[in-house]
Amino acid sequence: MTSKGALRLGVAGLGTVGAGVATLLRANADLIAARAGRPIEIVAVAARSRGRDRGVDLSGVRWVDDARALAADPDVDVVVELIGAAEGVARDLVKAALEAGKPVVTANKALVAVHGADLARLSERAGVPLMFEAAVAGGIPVIKAVREGLAGDRLDWIGGILNGTCNYIMTTMRESGRDFADVLSEAQALGYAEADPSTDVDGIDAAHKLAILAALAFGRPVDFGSVVVEGIRGIGALDLQFAARLGYRLKLLGVARRHADGIETRVSPCLVPEGSQLASVEGVFNAVLVEGAFVGRLMLEGRGAGAGPTASAVVADLVDVARGTAVPVWGASDTALSASRSLPRESFVGAYYLRLLVRDQPGVIAEIAAILRDEVVSVRSLLQHGRAAGTGQEAAVPLVIVTHETREAAILAARTRISALDVVLEEPTMLRIEAG
Amino acid sequence: MTSKGALRLGVAGLGTVGAGVATLLRANADLIAARAGRPIEIVAVAARSRGRDRGVDLSGVRWVDDARALAADPDVDVVVELIGAAEGVARDLVKAALEAGKPVVTANKALVAVHGADLARLSERAGVPLMFEAAVAGGIPVIKAVREGLAGDRLDWIGGILNGTCNYIMTTMRESGRDFADVLSEAQALGYAEADPSTDVDGIDAAHKLAILAALAFGRPVDFGSVVVEGIRGIGALDLQFAARLGYRLKLLGVARRHADGIETRVSPCLVPEGSQLASVEGVFNAVLVEGAFVGRLMLEGRGAGAGPTASAVVADLVDVARGTAVPVWGASDTALSASRSLPRESFVGAYYLRLLVRDQPGVIAEIAAILRDEVVSVRSLLQHGRAAGTGQEAAVPLVIVTHETREAAILAARTRISALDVVLEEPTMLRIEAG
Repeated sequence: MTSKGALRLGVAGLGTVGAGVATLLRANADLIAARAGRPIEIVAVAARSRGRDRGVDLSGVRWVDDARALAADPDVDVVVELIGAAEGVARDLVKAALEAGKPVVTANKALVAVHGADLARLSERAGVPLMFEAAVAGGIPVIKAVREGLAGDRLDWIGGILNGTCNYIMTTMRESGRDFADVLSEAQALGYAEADPSTDVDGIDAAHKLAILAALAFGRPVDFGSVVVEGIRGIGALDLQFAARLGYRLKLLGVARRHADGIETRVSPCLVPEGSQLASVEGVFNAVLVEGAFVGRLMLEGRGAGAGPTASAVVADLVDVARGTAVPVWGASDTALSASRSLPRESFVGAYYLRLLVRDQPGVIAEIAAILRDEVVSVRSLLQHGRAAGTGQEAAVPLVIVTHETREAAILAARTRISALDVVLEEPTMLRIEAG
Repeated sequence: MTSKGALRLGVAGLGTVGAGVATLLRANADLIAARAGRPIEIVAVAARSRGRDRGVDLSGVRWVDDARALAADPDVDVVVELIGAAEGVARDLVKAALEAGKPVVTANKALVAVHGADLARLSERAGVPLMFEAAVAGGIPVIKAVREGLAGDRLDWIGGILNGTCNYIMTTMRESGRDFADVLSEAQALGYAEADPSTDVDGIDAAHKLAILAALAFGRPVDFGSVVVEGIRGIGALDLQFAARLGYRLKLLGVARRHADGIETRVSPCLVPEGSQLASVEGVFNAVLVEGAFVGRLMLEGRGAGAGPTASAVVADLVDVARGTAVPVWGASDTALSASRSLPRESFVGAYYLRLLVRDQPGVIAEIAAILRDEVVSVRSLLQHGRAAGTGQEAAVPLVIVTHETREAAILAARTRISALDVVLEEPTMLRIEAG
């Protein structure tokens, strides 16, 4: 191997991840240089508060006021974008860097999910890699596994537990019997959830990651806009109890599935059987499950967030850039990508769990059963659970309906009609049942 | 991307894996060409019985009598070695191909484990890749994950369940209560174990894979000769019962662990706690667990053998070769590899399970306890289990000792002395306790 000079990085953003990357590059400098075939060094950084102590020595590193300037900086070989958000400085910087012929490594799932199709074309046109291993499932090298390690197989299913915050909340709800709001507050106090938790608990973060995984698995440009997204705000302690009674665990899953006529992509709270692979993934852990025609089922599990795991993924991308081994963004050249369309929600098929709070009076079940029959939803089981605790309505009881396989259009129509009944006292909770 | 001609393969060996590779290349030809940037085609094969029906169309493919000729074949760009065994034709062919400047893709764990250090130097000298994703854990892209996906981190531990045959046997023994010999016969009848099962049940196959993983994880040339290997022939139905009573599952684990003064590598039957990640991996599945300073714990689980998964790994390597993205064999150039030595067994430290069959008479425990005290082995618990069934010796009882953390030298010395006692009726079974 010919001796090369250092690979010089311009790092934009020095939050938890940025500081982690700087720490890792220092701590493992020798090992990284051996693997990359050359040293990897931060030469310039752009970050808001220059004076803040980040626990890492950045002496000798040049500070840049406007991150966008890194794209044109002649001393920067690679731009490392760790600012975040789909728009604004992050997007401007990544675009400008690719246009200037500089490789980009980013941990920005929102940017890649929303603008990844365009950015991939820019990357290909410029002949420089756009890498984002850290954008999905933190330290788990799932992007590499899917795009390269499974490059020979035709994948049929990819998904899993993609948001550690939601998984932590639901694990804690199950173990403690406490309610969503209560556990969310605790997660915020512990730093597992943001002050504004909506990106996590409304499923947006998981949907960004799922859109990226689906693009890689099915070899098509990323299509975030078509992901059907439901979060976990509607989940009550009662749902965890029912799930356990029915032999399931509750997980926020991202699921992308190949159908003859297109790709199903969605994020939603799901029931998975106790004892299944995904059921055992608890707390802040992430897991990605893949099914291929030849490879069969494969699961990757690990820490989906945090400075260490995320920095590990960013630096692995940098080693690839240094080695010159990067591959096309979606695994194939733009012209060779598949045109598989995303399917609308109404065409999905599955089994569902519907939890209602109904007035405890004669005829309620008959009324609901009639709607389900009209909408051609076949009922597998129907459970009642005594009086609801703490609702303040003496005559309210929870009622759970588990369906056989049915079209999602049918269950959605039934839910709308059931929800409108006078005897139904709150918005029904609907969960999908998955094999896990 | 510039349009390139097809990547032309010479395939040596058309057993289960070879036929699988041929099938996969046909089935997914378009997708593979899109990902590889060019078609990948078999142009020549060398296999024993030319006439045999392998369920795959090989018309138009040239048959070669001596596999070694593929190395010099001007129409072959890449040699795919699927013959197996550390010596003989497989070794000759791989060596000759690398010397002739041809990339090699192989599924041969024995060859890579035994001769991988030399072959890596050949590969580097010739500037052509030697790829072997299929050699470890079948379809799970663990070599890529460790060598590339975790290239930034310093790993401390790698290992797991590396032999599906042993895992199937021990899972079945636990579920059925049947004995080793009985379950082995069944596994042979089902095709899960070979007619000569020694490579699997004596731990050799797992040791090949572990040696490869340790080399990748710790960035050093492969050192198969130093792996401490114990198989599962000594495991009885009784051990499975005791394991369950103590809250453990029994697994044949390969474990490589970094110490200050070197690397511990061993394959041995181990107890892992019920509920741990490795405990839940059952049947023919494989799982590799990795721990790194930054990435934390990571587990990859999937099918470790079979035509489909193995072919998926071989073809992923071929796509890498076609893309020109292959990396050095042990993750760094030969001169940049670590010189970490393998540690001798005597220096290992851990907790152990020792199961004895002893005469049921006064003073036996005192005699054994005195030996353990002399050898400075601290006992955590001691269990008896009534009379042993089916031994034909009325006065024989099983006795299980679980130790605290102790040096392996101490427990080995104690075992030798205990084994020599008149009251000890058969060779003791010793198991390591791992966190799983």
